[in-house]
Amino acid sequence: MDIQTLRTRHPDHWMRAAAIRTLTLDAVAAANSGHSGMPMGMADVATVLFEKHLRFDPKAPNWPDRDRFILSAGHGSMLIYSLLYLTGYEDITLDQIKGFRQWGMRTAGHPEFGHAGGIETTTGPLGQGIANSVGFAIAEANLRARLGAKVMNHRTWVIAGDGCLMEGVSQEAIALAGKQQLSNLTVFWDDNGITIDGKVSIADVTDQKMRFLASGWAVFECDGHDPEDIDRAITAAKKSDKPQLIACKTHIALGSSAQDTSKGHGALTDAKLIADTKAAYGWTGGPFEIPAAIKAQWEAFGVRGAEARAAWEANLAAMPAARQKLVARLFSGAVDERALARAILGVKKAAVEAKAKIATRSASEKVLTAVNPVVFETIGGSADLTGSNNTKTPDLGVFSPEDRKGRYVYYGIREHGMAAAMNGMALHGGVRPYGGTFMCFTDYARPSMRLSALMGVPVVYVMTHDSIGLGEDGPTHQPVEHLAISRSTPNTLVFRPCDLVETAEAWQIALSQKSTPSVLALSRQNLPTLRTDAGAVNKVAKGAYVLAEAEGKRQVILMATGSEVEIAMKAKATLEAEGIGTRVVSMPSMELFAAQDEAYRKRILPPGSVRIAIEAGVRQGWDRWLLGQGGREAKAGFVGMKSFGASAPIDRLYKEFGITAEDTVALAKSLI
Amino acid sequence: MDIQTLRTRHPDHWMRAAAIRTLTLDAVAAANSGHSGMPMGMADVATVLFEKHLRFDPKAPNWPDRDRFILSAGHGSMLIYSLLYLTGYEDITLDQIKGFRQWGMRTAGHPEFGHAGGIETTTGPLGQGIANSVGFAIAEANLRARLGAKVMNHRTWVIAGDGCLMEGVSQEAIALAGKQQLSNLTVFWDDNGITIDGKVSIADVTDQKMRFLASGWAVFECDGHDPEDIDRAITAAKKSDKPQLIACKTHIALGSSAQDTSKGHGALTDAKLIADTKAAYGWTGGPFEIPAAIKAQWEAFGVRGAEARAAWEANLAAMPAARQKLVARLFSGAVDERALARAILGVKKAAVEAKAKIATRSASEKVLTAVNPVVFETIGGSADLTGSNNTKTPDLGVFSPEDRKGRYVYYGIREHGMAAAMNGMALHGGVRPYGGTFMCFTDYARPSMRLSALMGVPVVYVMTHDSIGLGEDGPTHQPVEHLAISRSTPNTLVFRPCDLVETAEAWQIALSQKSTPSVLALSRQNLPTLRTDAGAVNKVAKGAYVLAEAEGKRQVILMATGSEVEIAMKAKATLEAEGIGTRVVSMPSMELFAAQDEAYRKRILPPGSVRIAIEAGVRQGWDRWLLGQGGREAKAGFVGMKSFGASAPIDRLYKEFGITAEDTVALAKSLI
Repeated sequence: MDIQTLRTRHPDHWMRAAAIRTLTLDAVAAANSGHSGMPMGMADVATVLFEKHLRFDPKAPNWPDRDRFILSAGHGSMLIYSLLYLTGYEDITLDQIKGFRQWGMRTAGHPEFGHAGGIETTTGPLGQGIANSVGFAIAEANLRARLGAKVMNHRTWVIAGDGCLMEGVSQEAIALAGKQQLSNLTVFWDDNGITIDGKVSIADVTDQKMRFLASGWAVFECDGHDPEDIDRAITAAKKSDKPQLIACKTHIALGSSAQDTSKGHGALTDAKLIADTKAAYGWTGGPFEIPAAIKAQWEAFGVRGAEARAAWEANLAAMPAARQKLVARLFSGAVDERALARAILGVKKAAVEAKAKIATRSASEKVLTAVNPVVFETIGGSADLTGSNNTKTPDLGVFSPEDRKGRYVYYGIREHGMAAAMNGMALHGGVRPYGGTFMCFTDYARPSMRLSALMGVPVVYVMTHDSIGLGEDGPTHQPVEHLAISRSTPNTLVFRPCDLVETAEAWQIALSQKSTPSVLALSRQNLPTLRTDAGAVNKVAKGAYVLAEAEGKRQVILMATGSEVEIAMKAKATLEAEGIGTRVVSMPSMELFAAQDEAYRKRILPPGSVRIAIEAGVRQGWDRWLLGQGGREAKAGFVGMKSFGASAPIDRLYKEFGITAEDTVALAKSLI
Repeated sequence: MDIQTLRTRHPDHWMRAAAIRTLTLDAVAAANSGHSGMPMGMADVATVLFEKHLRFDPKAPNWPDRDRFILSAGHGSMLIYSLLYLTGYEDITLDQIKGFRQWGMRTAGHPEFGHAGGIETTTGPLGQGIANSVGFAIAEANLRARLGAKVMNHRTWVIAGDGCLMEGVSQEAIALAGKQQLSNLTVFWDDNGITIDGKVSIADVTDQKMRFLASGWAVFECDGHDPEDIDRAITAAKKSDKPQLIACKTHIALGSSAQDTSKGHGALTDAKLIADTKAAYGWTGGPFEIPAAIKAQWEAFGVRGAEARAAWEANLAAMPAARQKLVARLFSGAVDERALARAILGVKKAAVEAKAKIATRSASEKVLTAVNPVVFETIGGSADLTGSNNTKTPDLGVFSPEDRKGRYVYYGIREHGMAAAMNGMALHGGVRPYGGTFMCFTDYARPSMRLSALMGVPVVYVMTHDSIGLGEDGPTHQPVEHLAISRSTPNTLVFRPCDLVETAEAWQIALSQKSTPSVLALSRQNLPTLRTDAGAVNKVAKGAYVLAEAEGKRQVILMATGSEVEIAMKAKATLEAEGIGTRVVSMPSMELFAAQDEAYRKRILPPGSVRIAIEAGVRQGWDRWLLGQGGREAKAGFVGMKSFGASAPIDRLYKEFGITAEDTVALAKSLI
């Protein structure tokens, strides 16, 4: 259909969609940057979705049972900003649209979670939105089963482009959603045939519909510019008992001279092009001018959702007080701190009593076994390493099409998809996801782990086999730089506990976070219980503390984390026997230690002693604590890895790589 | 078919395959760790492949025109070790098999490139092998077109498991191979229906055959235990003009009591289980005993390849001397250093003359424009950011089914698949791949970038838009921690050049590497030409050097990289004007600087001055140079990022995040 036909056949629809298109053209021109083509191409689909299907209430953007709308093709951010402005979300005013991509505005280059109601997740790194959406849909299905359909019963809608579908993470998401038969999930594919480098066909000939069918999706098609056809496809899709792809044939940068070209993908800022395009649309208003009648039509689309919300609130108000309280708490993001503290304290007490020598991954399992029954919102999982990550506890059940109440997800061999799904669950609210893989494979999950931190979602990454200590599997499986990588990332808490007590304290902190993800680095190998106290005080919360004080005059401070704290304690024993007073500082979280005031940090790491850090990873990140002596120069050293690991039994590896008590003692003596 | 039928129907084949199975059982038992089930399941397929199809010569494992065999399911490493031992590769002796997974042995837990001839790539992180294989096949097709089929004409064979196919990177690889119609590539799918967590169906219901068909592959099937059926499928596959999937229905841990179970995936070490299994096989020898007759049959399989190699060598010997020399050089991994140096020198001379203000990504394009015509082996590409990464030069042509001579690959929006393919190309030999994306999306490529470093392949990552300096696209696109991440990785050279001269020098070093990958962090924004010298000396090679000396008494040393060197120079001008002698050290590569002797490092960073580092990234990694004063305490500071970035024009961002000459001057004065 040409533009003229589209305009005349559905004139009201046309002008509503044109409002998106012209706002996009104007905002991108004002910013002199951005992406015009995608919002211009998908305006019709979005208009029909918001008009007839999406359950949303601009006045209550955080209403728990709203539909979620996810713009996976985040570069087309002007699409969502236009939609939020037109329908009347108060965060996105016309001034925000005019300030697109400027400092301090909510209308960032790509949609940023937290900037405005209606932005459900941060997108832009391609494939993330569609992969998040699987988490949204899992959370909804799980809560629907556990809280009832009167509390939770909504859909998740996604707009994805060719970039999203080329990224590998989309395959992980598609396959997971297909297996889980997430019928509450609908993905619109913006099939415009264009990427930055040219036609899609220069890099891809995939039959996307066949690909989705292969993973158990239902597939629908429509002309992405024909509102009747779009509505028909959506209506049909909603009836499916599988997740649905709606392939929308569209024209990027519709109606402009850049239509159907790579140029159309980017920023269309040429004044004549914009004027000509608006003329082709039949649009007569000036820049950023939306006729009141059109704005009113858009705002009316929120009525359906407002009514639904009112009904939902009435339903909730009729429920028992305890249920109302639970729902309120779940969607506030706060766990039941008292129940959590009780469970943690129980684990700690049992730990100092039993003094068991267990791996911190097993310690983590003990913690979860105590915590999961009393923390309603945890949803565990693993990327096909359940028995190794120790993430499954008996009470959870398994989430599946047959058991939607299950709280454990078999993510398959999909670390990236798992992390992205966990982000989606946490963003959905009502659940707190944790998931496991080997620490080395944080690499695979890295793009989504960064987004956990950027968005500030409190997911917990259970990363076991956290050093060469995993032994024979060798360097491909042995993290060396991964603690440094996680620590380099802003707004990320990295924990490397040394025993069961520290593991319990780390979990307590991680589950109490509201806007920070946590990475738990846990050992494969058994470790002794080093902590002897098990009070209510959470020592890990300070990041670092004196685990064992020097007996004589302090000459050496040994800092260590995780499995290397045991080595520090052994080295201390030897040094003390030789009259060298040695303090051992356990530093389970550098970030939390860095957050303490200087007085505390100086108390733990006073100047004047030789300092040695022991960690079976690279030195990067340690120099701050080793060399920052604060006024009095002293010597420092590091016992750790300088290269990748190797395949051999654990003891041999620690010996060959020089990470032993003997190496530590020798280094300390050489520095004194 | 039950085991009894298999044994009796093809008794010779059966015993050859049983040799793999029993070596696996014995080696895993001796190591008390490893993965038994996969080699036991795929032994028949591998046996037929080596017997009848694979073109290999154990006496010449590096013969350039050999077929490549890639065990993507790397946990089944005993499969390849068995094959290499049985066919007579000298690196893998029986002692090596007996020393499986022990310190110093070639038979690591997962196959490690460089440990033994016949191991073409390091696998274990799932999906990497299949994604590497696309690079192998591209390299072969490209060299076949450019050097002729008498020099290059071989196939790449891959064994992949369900784990490989669930990892997202496999989708990127499959789609890229399908688009490129790589008919020289055959993937065997070990379809055993089992993963660590249980049946594949608990996490995946994907119809894999349909999925491959959707991306343009030819699909074949066989009973993975019937040698005739396997041979039939391979023979048919070889005739296809598309890449081929051969779906092999197999039983994990065939013939053991753990057959078809998750237990069978791991280490089968129970003595009775092993004895029972061997009995079921009809195997009577003791541990590690291979009857001479069976060994002889295996060794005879190499004759076909040895003959092919002799013919290949004869063909080559008949070619013009220049061609012979070229082939020898290409497969030695050495570039034409003189031609490269000449090209680099030309760029440097033009740069100091023109004094242009250009982005280092454009600088990189200028370098490539000079280098590509004289360096035969470069193959460029980008993950759909060609115009932004500036990776395409006019002479390259585009690699495609229509033009196999093209030296530029449109990888699509597949950073991970690109990196893995580049690893494969570099491992194949004869080409030197470089590829671009945004620095922030090193996250997506991370698992393969780590493997570049671990394997020691000299690929070059062209990472543009290397800081908040990219501006409006916002925090999802702004690297903050990524320099620290790349620097934390062993055996990786990270370059952040400040101008065209440094960019040229960085490229020279990167292209001269034989066993180290390089990451070039390049600016989006324009930068002045700061270097005024353009001699043959490569200053970047020292990692850091004095770009501008203090005019008066030196009180301050400013260290900076890339776009922040300009800020350092401006701050120096202000400080000098106030009588504060200030040295500016450009540090384009921390790794190369760390590799210099202490005398040089002290010369560049003498003790006693205030030190300030300026880099629009996190501080992690800088403390070594800031705080390590070597005996005399002085104050230090950092001008850089403490959080994620934001969406706004560049100047505003640098100002808001406090990364300006003014901030630097104020900090310096506060520290003096």
